[in-house]
Amino acid sequence: MTFATELERVGKLVEGRLAELLASGGSPSAGGASLAEAMRYAALGGGKRLRPFLLVSSARLFGVSEEDALPPACALECVHCYSLVHDDLPSMDDDAVRRGRPTLHLAFDEATAILAGDALLTLAFEILSDPRHSQDPAVRAELVFLLAKAAGWHGMALGQALDLSAERQGFALSDVATLQALKTGALFRFACEAGAVLGRAKASERLALIAYAEAFGQAFQLADDLLDAQGDAEAAGKAVAKDAGRGKATLIALLGPDAARARLDALVQEAEAALAPFGERAMTLVEAVRFAASRKR
Amino acid sequence: MTFATELERVGKLVEGRLAELLASGGSPSAGGASLAEAMRYAALGGGKRLRPFLLVSSARLFGVSEEDALPPACALECVHCYSLVHDDLPSMDDDAVRRGRPTLHLAFDEATAILAGDALLTLAFEILSDPRHSQDPAVRAELVFLLAKAAGWHGMALGQALDLSAERQGFALSDVATLQALKTGALFRFACEAGAVLGRAKASERLALIAYAEAFGQAFQLADDLLDAQGDAEAAGKAVAKDAGRGKATLIALLGPDAARARLDALVQEAEAALAPFGERAMTLVEAVRFAASRKR
Repeated sequence: MTFATELERVGKLVEGRLAELLASGGSPSAGGASLAEAMRYAALGGGKRLRPFLLVSSARLFGVSEEDALPPACALECVHCYSLVHDDLPSMDDDAVRRGRPTLHLAFDEATAILAGDALLTLAFEILSDPRHSQDPAVRAELVFLLAKAAGWHGMALGQALDLSAERQGFALSDVATLQALKTGALFRFACEAGAVLGRAKASERLALIAYAEAFGQAFQLADDLLDAQGDAEAAGKAVAKDAGRGKATLIALLGPDAARARLDALVQEAEAALAPFGERAMTLVEAVRFAASRKR
Repeated sequence: MTFATELERVGKLVEGRLAELLASGGSPSAGGASLAEAMRYAALGGGKRLRPFLLVSSARLFGVSEEDALPPACALECVHCYSLVHDDLPSMDDDAVRRGRPTLHLAFDEATAILAGDALLTLAFEILSDPRHSQDPAVRAELVFLLAKAAGWHGMALGQALDLSAERQGFALSDVATLQALKTGALFRFACEAGAVLGRAKASERLALIAYAEAFGQAFQLADDLLDAQGDAEAAGKAVAKDAGRGKATLIALLGPDAARARLDALVQEAEAALAPFGERAMTLVEAVRFAASRKR
């Protein structure tokens, strides 16, 4: 089975489980129905499900079944989707298109988009703490604690705040690395660490997965920025990235594309090296970082 | 000690603990500092802290110390404050003043207000799941589960969605009762149920507290609506509530003020009756519902 097939297979499992988790909602009245519908619009029908894939694959290293790993994987995806909905809002990045469709505040309205994001974030913690999904309260409580820290004011939310202020005030290389570690890295780290928690991994194994996740997150972001820069350069017929011009905080704008590509290769090697303790069992995770680094749009 | 003195005493404890919980944040950069500052603006320096008070008082029925009850009480207050920040946003209720100060999106900006609300909601789950605040993972996981359900798409967030759609589309008496139970009742219920969870209450005691909380929530909302109607009538020099005119979903607009006051008395009696199993120990909670029903602005 190729990596692409495997990613698609797990993606479909995640999609199905998310659809189940989001099916029970909706009140008979118009307001309730539209909240649930907006949450489904935001969470279903798009995305590669890379974060849930990392969680399921990390958990599998320790023999955790997909059935047991799927609920936390879906909780993580709810947080990712909430962050996209709120980041797209007019007062944030003001984006009109997401995954090829109108963004949620355009498809519904702004109030519904804010509420649906809030509700997806809250649902993530409901899923993680639901005794039907894990019999061990210590596992449930630890996953909640890790996800709240990853998503919150010292994690993803801080990253978004830094990003907004960087766009207004300019930025330095060290700031960009920090904000990307927070804004996108924190959820990748949660994905891999949650796998270790579910699998009752040894401390050394957990640290190895964290090191992998941190390199993965940086590689993912850098590949994203390179794709953006390449797309912009192609569109403009020249080798200057749009992002550099409008002050968006990317490493390409600061390092230049050649140094950025060299850094990307180094990060992939770093991620692979971190997986050495797991040997052949970690092949899927090795392929995942190679995939993340070489994505085409 | 009078009830007012006791409410003020616990309110100060909550304020102090919240200030500690919100002190550790803020990054050296401007974006991070302003996120943490906005969270403090939203959570500190205002409010009677009635929800935390109910939690601390319910827990005390079972001998739980204030020290142990304060972190969950602060988590609850974080959720309450996040809901106020997001409800005040221009696309929601578009309010300019909250607790006598400019609302958060006016004091900072809209993006920061959305992010600070998100971060306060997330922080609530971090506090509840933090092993430093409770040694028992089963208690931590159960509190998270209860708060996520109370705040989420079948609870407070649904209530807000129903409220927005009621203002647009008109409403019936049964809808108003439902939306108020969700929008304001859910957090009062969590307050009392959390006290029971912390105190390892018997099922019958927990149910008694839930019955109390549900009557409390309705009485609180009705008293609020009566105050609004009274203030409007005084301002306008006539006995017609503004809210009835602009389609805001209140019971006063539907029942009329006399029937509403009779209903309020009945709810206070219902709440007191629910506390009968606790006898004299529940005197503070009895006084709390009387206080909530007879508030002056």
